[in-house]
Amino acid sequence: MAGAAVLRGEITTALRSALLEELAANGYGRLSIEAVARRAGVAKTAVYRRWNAKIDMVLEVVAEFAGRKFSLPDTGSLHGDLGLVLHILAAALEHPLASQIIPDLLVEAGRDPKIAEALQRTQRAIQDEVGVPLIKRAIERGELPADTDPDLAIDLVVGPIYWRLTVARRPLSPDDLAQLIDATAAALTAGAPGPPDRTN
Amino acid sequence: MAGAAVLRGEITTALRSALLEELAANGYGRLSIEAVARRAGVAKTAVYRRWNAKIDMVLEVVAEFAGRKFSLPDTGSLHGDLGLVLHILAAALEHPLASQIIPDLLVEAGRDPKIAEALQRTQRAIQDEVGVPLIKRAIERGELPADTDPDLAIDLVVGPIYWRLTVARRPLSPDDLAQLIDATAAALTAGAPGPPDRTN
Repeated sequence: MAGAAVLRGEITTALRSALLEELAANGYGRLSIEAVARRAGVAKTAVYRRWNAKIDMVLEVVAEFAGRKFSLPDTGSLHGDLGLVLHILAAALEHPLASQIIPDLLVEAGRDPKIAEALQRTQRAIQDEVGVPLIKRAIERGELPADTDPDLAIDLVVGPIYWRLTVARRPLSPDDLAQLIDATAAALTAGAPGPPDRTN
Repeated sequence: MAGAAVLRGEITTALRSALLEELAANGYGRLSIEAVARRAGVAKTAVYRRWNAKIDMVLEVVAEFAGRKFSLPDTGSLHGDLGLVLHILAAALEHPLASQIIPDLLVEAGRDPKIAEALQRTQRAIQDEVGVPLIKRAIERGELPADTDPDLAIDLVVGPIYWRLTVARRPLSPDDLAQLIDATAAALTAGAPGPPDRTN
């Protein structure tokens, strides 16, 4: 019986990998339970024993990400923390999960409120674990004003690199990344006390 | 004969609208020539007389955007120009074309080099007509350094608002937009002459 449970677990793992590969290769719109089963090398019934429909498989995989624990070490400065986050994002956005599956599901989110909700929850979880502590530490160090809006800060940190790598799909050299880190730090501190206008 | 030509033009226009509606509602992956014809109220043969496959319809509509002329008035300052661009982007990104069709086709671009190339060409055309002149004017006014990288500048201008409205899908209040304009101006001028570090 223990052997059967192990086998069931292995099939579930194989199905999850097959699902991610199918999503990356063909997208949610063309995803079929048949194709996932075929790629995992199991019968269609093995899928239906676990999930009722393709939406349920996808929601489970997305929710699994929201449940993971992320945390970022304190580098001692806003500039250092931003450098670390942007290096991690640059690497993550090269992965097919980020470059194909997430954008694909985001499009589906516009059509299906259940997918939208699951993605929002995942985004919110990562933001609360990584983004909010980063901003809080910078406020404590006096690098950012106490009323910094974390939502807007996330847009300024994630937006440019997301656009560059997943939308414009232009490569980002180490020099470009260094410039992007400086620019992001300047964008975040635009409302901070200090010289009110750099062009003066 | 003139009447027949007018009718042909009207059918083409109806098919283009139907294509955009189908793309927004169901996405490229599920797009079928049958559905486009049905939505336009014409026979399937009317589609096949114009395009061989769904990819050809989509490429033509994307190329048509690249051919449009965009231009932005000179508001007299980088901050003013950025304000105008971000207001236009905020409005454009509320449109289903931007919020559903473009992200959907961008995902397809990862699978189909022909779609990738058409989108790149369109992006490049808009960047050359709107982005490059904006940066050039700011350089001439002494607001940006002469060696400003236009690609990186575009990432900093478009990235945060694209992320906010089409990925995070959080609403952007007029106050948020004003903050975003200030932050973008600060990001662009991060490499400009002036106080080297605002946190000093």
